[in-house]
Formats: sequence, C-alpha cells, structure tokens
Amino acid sequence: MAKKNIGAKAIALHKKLGGKIVISSAMEVKSRADLSLVYTPGVAAVSSLLHKHPTKAREYTIKGKTVAVISDGSAVLGLGNIGPYGALPVMEGKCALFKTFANVEAFPLVLDTQDPEEIIEAVCAVAPVFGGINLEDIAAPKCFYIEEQVKARLDIPVMHDDQHGTAIAVLAALINAAKVVKKDLKKLKVVISGAGAAGTAVTNLLLKAGVRDVVVLDSKGIINTARPEKHKKELAKRTNPRRVKGGLPEALWGADVLIGVSGPGLASAADIRIMSKKAIVFAMANPEPEILPEEALSGGAAVIGTGRSDYPNQINNSLVFPGVFRGALDNGVKHITDDMKLKAAKNLAALVKKPTAQRVVPGPFERGVVEAVAKAIR
Amino acid sequence: MAKKNIGAKAIALHKKLGGKIVISSAMEVKSRADLSLVYTPGVAAVSSLLHKHPTKAREYTIKGKTVAVISDGSAVLGLGNIGPYGALPVMEGKCALFKTFANVEAFPLVLDTQDPEEIIEAVCAVAPVFGGINLEDIAAPKCFYIEEQVKARLDIPVMHDDQHGTAIAVLAALINAAKVVKKDLKKLKVVISGAGAAGTAVTNLLLKAGVRDVVVLDSKGIINTARPEKHKKELAKRTNPRRVKGGLPEALWGADVLIGVSGPGLASAADIRIMSKKAIVFAMANPEPEILPEEALSGGAAVIGTGRSDYPNQINNSLVFPGVFRGALDNGVKHITDDMKLKAAKNLAALVKKPTAQRVVPGPFERGVVEAVAKAIR
Repeated sequence: MAKKNIGAKAIALHKKLGGKIVISSAMEVKSRADLSLVYTPGVAAVSSLLHKHPTKAREYTIKGKTVAVISDGSAVLGLGNIGPYGALPVMEGKCALFKTFANVEAFPLVLDTQDPEEIIEAVCAVAPVFGGINLEDIAAPKCFYIEEQVKARLDIPVMHDDQHGTAIAVLAALINAAKVVKKDLKKLKVVISGAGAAGTAVTNLLLKAGVRDVVVLDSKGIINTARPEKHKKELAKRTNPRRVKGGLPEALWGADVLIGVSGPGLASAADIRIMSKKAIVFAMANPEPEILPEEALSGGAAVIGTGRSDYPNQINNSLVFPGVFRGALDNGVKHITDDMKLKAAKNLAALVKKPTAQRVVPGPFERGVVEAVAKAIR
Repeated sequence: MAKKNIGAKAIALHKKLGGKIVISSAMEVKSRADLSLVYTPGVAAVSSLLHKHPTKAREYTIKGKTVAVISDGSAVLGLGNIGPYGALPVMEGKCALFKTFANVEAFPLVLDTQDPEEIIEAVCAVAPVFGGINLEDIAAPKCFYIEEQVKARLDIPVMHDDQHGTAIAVLAALINAAKVVKKDLKKLKVVISGAGAAGTAVTNLLLKAGVRDVVVLDSKGIINTARPEKHKKELAKRTNPRRVKGGLPEALWGADVLIGVSGPGLASAADIRIMSKKAIVFAMANPEPEILPEEALSGGAAVIGTGRSDYPNQINNSLVFPGVFRGALDNGVKHITDDMKLKAAKNLAALVKKPTAQRVVPGPFERGVVEAVAKAIR
C-alpha cells in the first residue's frame, strides 16, 4: 500500500511540476544594451573567439558546467524497455539530483532510437555543448559497446552510470559491511545475480579491489565460458575460481555476500539461510528489490541494503554520480579511470566513521558525500 | 570604436557568466521522502504511465515547455561557417531571450557534424525531449532540405528561424514602412540582396502577402532560371516579373525597397540615390549591415532598418521567435503554416499604432510583442 501511495503521489507531483528542471537566463536582459551584449552584435566577438579557440568554450559557455544525461529507454529502472518517454522522468530526476547534490547542471536527452550505432552518433553529435556525458538506462550488452565507442571518440568524461555508479556504491557499502560482520573483504565469497550492465561493472570493480571469489549468475544460472554472449564469456573467465556449477542455491551455498542487480522475486528467506553466517545481502533492483529487507532479515542476513530511499542502507548511485561529475568538471578530467572509481568507493566508505548493520553507507543528503567522491576524480 | 567596445564588453560578460543559461531543480529535494517521489521508487509510476501514454509527456515532463535551439554552426550571424563552438554563444543567447521574452525554456544544442543527413538524424533522435525545434544558423541550401525532412518526420513544430523569423519581422516592418512613405505594399518594387535562407523565406512571405515585384540577387547578380542551384532556379521562376537583368544597380534602378540579407559592404549612398523617392532600406546583416544607416540616409533613404539592437528599427527575429514558440506550445500547434506566419507579421505590424520613419516595428522589450505573434500561431 505504501508503494501504491508513493506512485500516486509521484504522479500528482510530476503533473503539478510539469518537468523537474527549470531553465532560466543567467542574467536579466532588460535593455537594448543588455541585448547587444548577450546577443547581436556583441556575441559575435565571443563566437569569433571560440571559433579560433574551441577549448575556451569551457570558460565562456555552459560547456564548463553542464552534463548530459542520455538514455534510449531500453533498460529503465526495473521496468525494462519502456522507450524514451518512459525514460524521461527518470532522466529529469537525475538532472534534479545533479543540481541538488553537486550543483552540476544537467540536461536530459532521451533518444528516439535504440540502435547502438545511431545512439553513438547522436551522443557524439551533441557532445560539443557538454562537459560530460552520463549514459543511463541503456540495456546490456550494447551499453558496453556504446560506452567504449563514445569514450574513444570524445575528449570529455563519459560514464554509463548503471555500470560504474552502481559499482562504486556497492564497493563502498561492501567495504563497510565487511567491517560490520568482521570478515576480510578480499576473502569474501560473493554472489552477484545479474550479468548485465551493473553486474558486470560490480564484478570488475570488486576484482579490482582485491576480492577473489566472485560467482556471477543470470536467469540461466551461473555463467561459464561456454556462454554465447561475449561479455558473459569474458566475465566467466575472470570469475568463479571454485568452478561452481548450477543456479542460485549452488552459488549461495556458504557464500558471504549476495548482490542482486537483476530484478524482483530472486530469493526467499530460505535461500538466505544456506549462506554463511552473518550474510550480507544487497538487493539493488529498483523499484522492486530481489528480496525485501524483511524477508532477508528473517533468513538471517546480518547486513541488508537496497537501492531504495525508503529503507536503511540505500546503496544507490545517487551517492556517486553527482560527485563523479563534480570532480571531473572541477579537475578537467577527460577519462574516468578504474583507479579513480576505486578511490571514490574507498572515500565514500570512509565517510561512515563507525559502520553498523543499519549504516554501511552515508545517506545521500549527508555532508561530504559529493566532496568525498569528487576528490577521487582527478 | 563603439563596436570594439561592445565586443570586449561581451567577452568580459560571457567570461563572468560562464554560460548564459542556468538549469535548476524545479523543487527543492530536501529529504528521502522527496527523493522517493522525484526519483526511485516513485518515479517508476510516472515512467510506466508515459510508456503507456507517450503523448502525456507534455503534461508530466519538460517536453511541454522546452524548445531546442539547434545549429551546426555553418552560417552563424555574418561570420559564416565557424562550427559548433563558435555557434554556441549565439544559441545560448537565443535561449536566454526565449526565457526573458516569452517564458519559453530553451536549451542549445550545437552539433559536431555539418552533414545534412547526420543533422537530420541527430535532431530527430533528441526530439522526444522537446516541445519544439528552433533550427538556427544552418547554411543554405542544405537548411531547406533539413527543415523539410525534420518537419516531415516529427510531430512537434520545427522552424528554421533564419528563414521564417526573419521573413515575419521583415514583412511586419515593410507593412508599416509602406504606410510611412505612403506607398501601397502590393505595388512596391522590392530588391532582395541574398538568395540564401533569409532571402528565400523573405521573398516567399512577401509574395504570399501580395507583393508582386520582387527582384532577388546574390553575389553573382540578379538570379534567373538558368541558375544551377535548385532553390535559386525555383525562386527565379516566382520573381522578377519585369525580367530585369544585371547586378545591384540594374535591380535598384527605380526600386522602392532594398532588403539586405547578405552581408556587409553591399551598397553605398550612391546606390541608394538611384532608387525611387522615399526609398525603404532594411540592411539586416549581423553584426555588420549591408549599408550603415548613416550612409543610407545620406543616399536619401526615407525609412531605414537594421538587425541590430543599437540602431532604431531593429528588424530582428528576436521580435518573432519567442512568440512563435510561445504560441505553438500554448496552442498545441504541430506545424507552423504560411498563414500563421502572415498573420504573425500583420499582428506585429499592428502593434505600432502610428508608424514613423524611426519606428516601423516595436522594440523587443515592448509589451504585447510576444502575445501579438503568439496569438497568430494557432
């Protein structure tokens, strides 16, 4: 019922607002004299300057402060492929958060195409306006290819947030959860449900952080090197050192951590009971987690997180993306590297001085969150 | 010197502002409860709604109030092909004016391509976010093809402002200038210098308004049906009923009106002297007009207009575009027709109750300008 209320309230709020961002003029244009500076003839001098020195666009235009939030609507929240109009409210929401949390100005672009090559062309075509590109809610596996191609072609930071924002938030939470249950991060047995955008990036960042035993599964079970999808084949090569075979029960048997980045209805209390003692469960699917916190708790989980704002331990990329782009813009970073992501997760974890089961990550409204992440992006 | 000062002042102002538009959040996001409405999980209800009913995006997102100002930088002001970074300050300026004059929210997109097909694809790709598309500073003749294709593919109003905004402003000014010199609009002999975007659209709208004697010339002289360019060939068919041949002097001999939409250095006082008595001269090139008002005056011109904000009679599309899109958004107009443009020009002209040589158009800051134009777009 609470959920239904939230949905109805959200619909009413969106109708009232008619758009979650507002564009205004940076200066009041009150006279012909003002007009001749912001527009013709004065603006011609600025245009000539930027024609000669395009890199100065960062100083003289919105490029220095503005990020694009771009989606094709092919994998929106847990709702799937709901197209550009379905995606737009989410992208606007991100833009509102960019501004609220990090004073980054962001504009949403939802695309009327789901073809990877056309998406790449569209993103690169509009890039001159922006100081960074936040790709969002683009389905796997094309998201990997799109991000790679766009990064290679542009000299501004590009981040597919479903991958890297999620990975940074999860690693930060796991660093602190390991402290709470008094286990060594690097020795954790981790099960990741979901081999899409988030699952792949979380796996990669955990491996980078020194975690050695990661088992990844998707709807067909634990992935292996015989999988036809290139990115799953590659992922299987880097994971599952104990060569576990089967599905969720086989993977969970004796595991320390379950990270859900797949969808609702994955696990029950019984599944959690076969994990090791003091299990950590991060059920990140939005808006419906893989297992409700109440149920994970009754299965014996010691630390539980979700991606939602209405439960404790919100392990959401809203902790991450504002700071990543704040740092990238402030420090003139052209590419966001793995080392920066690792450092961002560690900084974010370190913000929680005394982690507890109810608090493995800071809240998105806490002071210092944006700064902690931003200072890693340099 | 004044011009140099304006340029230096504009550069200093742009550096200080660091972008002429500001994006902010429509509501303060202060708590987890707010977050769960503007973002997950609440936003999912809005996304699902818009997936099912995409046309409701106008009510629930920025689509209902936001226009894109899009350029490839191929024909910026009088500066020519100065690319996306050169174009960006002009597009931002337009966005600032959209907001200031008409409370239309506009976002600038400058494209990293000048290929017509790629421009069409990019514009159509980003269209879902916008309630209208203002194409800007795209060179002729590709601008005709691009506008035509984009209009055919989209169900939101698309206007290449260099064409139609200029044409509406010129017709409004000409209606009143004809009154000032006591000549019949339909009997005016009109010379148009420039057969590009603006020249073509001005010609078409004057013909639509009933003007019969229009002679169009470009850098090679009076255009004729032997011209290789398709749009010039077509234009020649519809114009020059007296079959005048030659260049500017032949065209101007006995003409009532000179409209310059080409570039600086076109005409001198001597050229104006061969026109009929009480000549009307609109020298619209920006930032450098085809003939300076002082010189046109010494050549005997009775009514003089420019596109600039630092002379009287600023016949600039800033009188037009805010109202066109205000009207289109308010009235749910999907295509801007010739009849709407004609009506907009008449409404704009009618705002000046007693036209004089110093005042054939209202100033852009006058009350009623946006409303007069907007009420024609329905």
